[in-house]
Amino acid sequence: MEIIYSVAELRMRLKQEQSVGFVPTMGNLHAGHIELTRQVRERVSCVVLSIFVNRLQFGPNEDFDKYPRTFLDDCDRCREAGVDIVFAPDEKEMYPVPQDYLVEPPEIQHILDGAVRPGHFRGVATVVLKLFNMVQPHVALFGKKDYQQCRVLSNMVRQFNLPVEMILAETVRAADGLALSSRNGYLTAAERSEAPQLFAALNRVKSALLAGESDLAAIERRTVNELSSRGWRPDYISIRRQSDLLAPQHGDRDLVVLAAARLGTTRLIDNLEVSL
Amino acid sequence: MEIIYSVAELRMRLKQEQSVGFVPTMGNLHAGHIELTRQVRERVSCVVLSIFVNRLQFGPNEDFDKYPRTFLDDCDRCREAGVDIVFAPDEKEMYPVPQDYLVEPPEIQHILDGAVRPGHFRGVATVVLKLFNMVQPHVALFGKKDYQQCRVLSNMVRQFNLPVEMILAETVRAADGLALSSRNGYLTAAERSEAPQLFAALNRVKSALLAGESDLAAIERRTVNELSSRGWRPDYISIRRQSDLLAPQHGDRDLVVLAAARLGTTRLIDNLEVSL
Repeated sequence: MEIIYSVAELRMRLKQEQSVGFVPTMGNLHAGHIELTRQVRERVSCVVLSIFVNRLQFGPNEDFDKYPRTFLDDCDRCREAGVDIVFAPDEKEMYPVPQDYLVEPPEIQHILDGAVRPGHFRGVATVVLKLFNMVQPHVALFGKKDYQQCRVLSNMVRQFNLPVEMILAETVRAADGLALSSRNGYLTAAERSEAPQLFAALNRVKSALLAGESDLAAIERRTVNELSSRGWRPDYISIRRQSDLLAPQHGDRDLVVLAAARLGTTRLIDNLEVSL
Repeated sequence: MEIIYSVAELRMRLKQEQSVGFVPTMGNLHAGHIELTRQVRERVSCVVLSIFVNRLQFGPNEDFDKYPRTFLDDCDRCREAGVDIVFAPDEKEMYPVPQDYLVEPPEIQHILDGAVRPGHFRGVATVVLKLFNMVQPHVALFGKKDYQQCRVLSNMVRQFNLPVEMILAETVRAADGLALSSRNGYLTAAERSEAPQLFAALNRVKSALLAGESDLAAIERRTVNELSSRGWRPDYISIRRQSDLLAPQHGDRDLVVLAAARLGTTRLIDNLEVSL
C-alpha cells in the first residue's frame, strides 16, 4: 500500500490505472469505511481512500479541533483491507490559497442537518468536488449513514455532469443497532449503552408508517418526546421523501426517516428508509 | 468533422483520443474563435469546439433571445479550420433539470462587468465547469477579450483542482483595432466606424501610464469623458492589476485597463494589458 500526500504525485501514480474506486473519508476509520472499500475492490484496478479532516465543513463552534485523528491506525486498517493508495493531503495541499470558489447547493443544504450546521454541505460539496478532480475516480462510494450528504453529493454529480459513478452504501451497524460513526468514540460508557435507542426510535417510526399511520407530524413529535424523556436533546426527527428530502407529498411512497440528537455533548445522526 | 449533440455520445467518441483541446463558445464564430482552435491544433489529437448559448449567464433584460445564432455557418468555419468535433448540446441536454447547483465565485464576480451584469460570472463558471466535465479536455482556450471571464475561470480551475491546462489567448482585432466580438454584428455602419475609438481610448490610457501618470482615477475619469463626448455611454474604464482585477496597490507593475461602453444599443467591452 502506498501513502501519497501530494496531488501531483497522486495524478502521476494513477495514470497507469485502468479504473479507480474512491472512498473519501475524514479518517478515524471504522467497519463502515472498510465496507465501502470492499464493495469496490473487485470492480476497479486501484482503490484510493482519502483521509482529510475538512475544516471547510465544520462550523466555528464545532468539533474540528477535537475530531479524532488516528492516521497510523487508519493506514493499518487500509493495508489489511487491500486499499492500494491512502491519499492524505495536508491543509496546505488542499487549500494552498483561501478557498473562495465554492459549490453552492440548493435549498437542500439549508434543511435538517444544514439548518443546525450552516455552511456544512457547501463545505462538503466543495471538498468532494476538489477530491474528485484530484483523484478522477470512475466510482466513488459514500455511506448512507450521512443520508443528506449522499443526496447533496449525488445531485451535485448529476448537475455538474461529473464523470463518476456514485455508490451509496447501506449503513454498517454495531450488533445493538448503533450506526458506526467516528463520533461514537466521544460517548461515555453509559451514553454508549443508551445510543442504540436512536435507531430503535427510527424503527418505531418505520413500524408506525408501515401500519398506515398518516399524521407524520404527530409521529415526529411523539418520537422527539420519547427521546427527550430518555435524556436526549433531539435536533430533529423528520419524515421526508428519499429523492430530495423535502416533505412527502400525497402519493410519495419512498420515504426516509432522519434523526439527529445529542446525547451528552455528542451529536449522533441516523436514518432509515421506508418504502410504503 | 463530426457534429455531436449528446454528452453520452461525446464521451463515447472521446474515449479513443490521446488528448483533447477544447474551445467553448456561444457560436457566431469569428476569427478570434478560429485562432483559438489554431493555437491548440498541433498539440492535441482532437479539437472540440462547443456551441451553446448559455441562458444561465444572461440577465433577464439582456440579449439572450436576440443573441446571433448562425449554426450552419459556424460549422462551415470549423470544418475549414480543422476542428474535429463540434459539440452542440441543446438546452435540455445541458440543463435537463433546473440548474440549482452553482459555482459561486468570490468578490471578483461582483465587480466591473459583474456589477453591471449580476449573476453573469456565476452562470459562466457553472456552465464551463459542466462543459469541462462533459468534454474532459487536457487543454482549454479562452480569449483575453473577455478578460474578467478569463480570470474567473482560471482561478476556478486552480481552486477546484480541475485537471485542465488553461490557455488565455491574445484578443484578435480588426485592422482598425476593434476587438472581434459576436456583438459587433449589432452595430450600424456609423457605429461600426466609431467602434475602434474604444481601443484607441485604451491605448491613450496605456500611454499615460507608461509616461508615468500616477493618478489612476483622473486617467479613468478623463477617458470616460472623452468617450461620453463622442456619444458613448461608458459603464466603466478601470485600471486594475492583472492577477485579481482588484485596485492596484503601490508597487503593482502588471496592470490591465478594462473598458465597457454602450454605443447605441450595443454594449462593447475591451481591455489592454500594461506592464510598467
